[in-house]
Amino acid sequence: MSDSVKYNLPESRIATSWYNIVADMPVPPAPVLHPGTGQPIGPDDLAPLFPMALIGQEVSTERDIEIPEPVRDIYRMWRPSPLYRARRLEAALDTPAKIYYKYEGVSPAGSHKPNTAVAQAFYNREEGITKLSTETGAGQWGSSLAFAGALFGLEVSVFMVKVSYQQKPYRRAMMEAYGASCVASPSALTEAGRAMLAQDPDTTGSLGMAISEAVEVAATNDDTKYALGSVLNHVLLHQTVIGTEAMEQMEMAGDYPDVVIGCAGGGSNFAGLAFPFIGAKFRGGPSPRFIAVEPAACPTMTRGTFAYDFGDTGHLTPLVKMHTLGSTFVPPGFHAGGLRYHGMAPLVSHLYDLGEIEARAVHQNPCFEAGLQFARSEGIIPAPEATHAEEEGTSRVILFNLSGHGNFDMAAYDEYLSGNLEDKDYDAEALDAALAGLPQVAAE
Amino acid sequence: MSDSVKYNLPESRIATSWYNIVADMPVPPAPVLHPGTGQPIGPDDLAPLFPMALIGQEVSTERDIEIPEPVRDIYRMWRPSPLYRARRLEAALDTPAKIYYKYEGVSPAGSHKPNTAVAQAFYNREEGITKLSTETGAGQWGSSLAFAGALFGLEVSVFMVKVSYQQKPYRRAMMEAYGASCVASPSALTEAGRAMLAQDPDTTGSLGMAISEAVEVAATNDDTKYALGSVLNHVLLHQTVIGTEAMEQMEMAGDYPDVVIGCAGGGSNFAGLAFPFIGAKFRGGPSPRFIAVEPAACPTMTRGTFAYDFGDTGHLTPLVKMHTLGSTFVPPGFHAGGLRYHGMAPLVSHLYDLGEIEARAVHQNPCFEAGLQFARSEGIIPAPEATHAEEEGTSRVILFNLSGHGNFDMAAYDEYLSGNLEDKDYDAEALDAALAGLPQVAAE
Repeated sequence: MSDSVKYNLPESRIATSWYNIVADMPVPPAPVLHPGTGQPIGPDDLAPLFPMALIGQEVSTERDIEIPEPVRDIYRMWRPSPLYRARRLEAALDTPAKIYYKYEGVSPAGSHKPNTAVAQAFYNREEGITKLSTETGAGQWGSSLAFAGALFGLEVSVFMVKVSYQQKPYRRAMMEAYGASCVASPSALTEAGRAMLAQDPDTTGSLGMAISEAVEVAATNDDTKYALGSVLNHVLLHQTVIGTEAMEQMEMAGDYPDVVIGCAGGGSNFAGLAFPFIGAKFRGGPSPRFIAVEPAACPTMTRGTFAYDFGDTGHLTPLVKMHTLGSTFVPPGFHAGGLRYHGMAPLVSHLYDLGEIEARAVHQNPCFEAGLQFARSEGIIPAPEATHAEEEGTSRVILFNLSGHGNFDMAAYDEYLSGNLEDKDYDAEALDAALAGLPQVAAE
Repeated sequence: MSDSVKYNLPESRIATSWYNIVADMPVPPAPVLHPGTGQPIGPDDLAPLFPMALIGQEVSTERDIEIPEPVRDIYRMWRPSPLYRARRLEAALDTPAKIYYKYEGVSPAGSHKPNTAVAQAFYNREEGITKLSTETGAGQWGSSLAFAGALFGLEVSVFMVKVSYQQKPYRRAMMEAYGASCVASPSALTEAGRAMLAQDPDTTGSLGMAISEAVEVAATNDDTKYALGSVLNHVLLHQTVIGTEAMEQMEMAGDYPDVVIGCAGGGSNFAGLAFPFIGAKFRGGPSPRFIAVEPAACPTMTRGTFAYDFGDTGHLTPLVKMHTLGSTFVPPGFHAGGLRYHGMAPLVSHLYDLGEIEARAVHQNPCFEAGLQFARSEGIIPAPEATHAEEEGTSRVILFNLSGHGNFDMAAYDEYLSGNLEDKDYDAEALDAALAGLPQVAAE
């Protein structure tokens, strides 16, 4: 059996700019709207939540946005991340396809999330902010922002979706080790949280609820801004370092992907890998298939609708046009907690709507099976989120993003190994109700 | 504040040979003795436990031992590992010293242990072995051998020290994810285990007990060999890739260490970093201080004696001359489970006896404090074992080995953060009794 091959780039090849796909889009994405007026919002509307530099990136149409040197200096801790040709997995699958994967689990927080956490912490500190509030699902994002906050001397408070807070106590401990605070959401610390608890004291929580809490804290405290780990344009932008490196590494390997695959919760992992390749296509380059894989229990693209919706359950955010299951939809408590968001990044949704990318929904148990096969052939135990990207087996050259390791998911693997993992499905009636309740502006 | 600096080596600089310090020692180490005859043992005595290639390495006096290509191919997954200059930590400590650390947590199993696990799995498979039995303390070694076994198609069964098995269920799940089996030791599966349980049904277990169980399985099954994760000469040999790389990386940094520090449980982590530097000194090179740091609760060098002793509690192994607390000594159940072994590697003990290295014992709570300070300045949460190496603050150029990450130790950090971590000490009477019970040959 041939051994798997690693393609390394030297540090000098860490990107000097992020790639903004908006510059190359054939149709511009829909604007963000003010929920009161239904009109496009301006920078001032977002200023209570984000530093101006990030607001600028959120609406930028420039193709290349320079990465500040202090951010690149921290990227150096783990970037460029390796690209592997998974020859052992190819052999185990007995496939003629060549399978490549980019591995983002090498970061100190164990996933791709620090790519944007470090950038966001940097810009906030530059503008004199001392505190950040955020939400987290599985904990990948919360621990990444805790890590970045520690490096830039920012106080970080994290609202962690209750079901994950209970399933993954060590992610919480990791955030605390980095000096952040972490509470289960919904909590009694915010008005939004108290309202949700009043409605359903036993709720498992959701990213939508946790976002409401984090946004409320930022909106009501002058020294605190809000940070989001996915969905928004500037977050996807920061993740493009993944795809930019991967393009160069695929060239080293002498291949170009026929299909680019990524798991999609909020969309930043998929976008990080795929956008530079999609942009190359827009500019006349090769035309691979692009597949976003989502959990069948939270099927934002395959079962949701493309409409204006709130980013959070408490309706504190502006309205963004995205594929959504409705902001009141609560997905069941499955194990890829990072993928349990009711919406999909507007830029990914827009590309899906344009027919530029495909979407696929997969169930939990086949993903754990794929994760174990991957671990036993390639030696890395993938995060459950990442196993969602390992489904495609027939194309000639496949590239996917292994967005993180599964060191904090062993309880879930354990359940799977002992046959106790239930393949949860979403509540179809609740989904229909959530979709029926979309804000009226959606019918523009 | 200056950012920390990473020194990367290209894959082409993965070592082509392991460094055998025995070749350069001023006084040869004492031979291993047969416990029945008191005479030096030969290869045939070890053949039931190890493949001939590893027995050859155990007694070799050659300086450079070639690393087989299939082993180097797997090393490529994560080697060369990075060397960092910890400028952020220097600033946080406000020290004029330059602090460098080699980071072995980048391996798929999260520690330095795969360096030897891969080599051992390779040589066993080359000689037609299909099953390996082993013990593990904190689980770093067990999961590393499980990882290596998966890559070479070997069945791995692991006896995990009971207290760690209970403290760290996810390490067990990790081994199972790699396809290995794992039971708490002492177990009812072996005669040795049953005897120990009969004597003390509530024992927390110890590495010495787990070794007895694993050795028994190998000795009584023709298709099974035994694998050890530290202590033995060939294990230390395989770890020298760490120091060989570090020497080249220190050269890139334009520095040479004034002090080389490593945590020491069985000794392989310390030896892996230090031996190439000690060898350079033996051959007329610079003469840094070498400090092995051990837990105050299991103070093998600072409180033990240099004598012939069994490697295990059940007295199934040959006698090796080492610093030992006595093979019947059971250290308290503190959190750096990988450091809870009654003996120290014979080669490290021999160098300590010759005055070539120093030993230092540290308590648990200051280590967790150091670990948090490291996490918040450098961004990596160290394994509790690794925090034992972070104590030295005054020399000019300090080099230490960060042997693994703490992703599976968050429960322990959690206890520390919540103020519930007890600083356990060993039972001095039990230690005296264990030392008094050393085998008679010790008085040579």
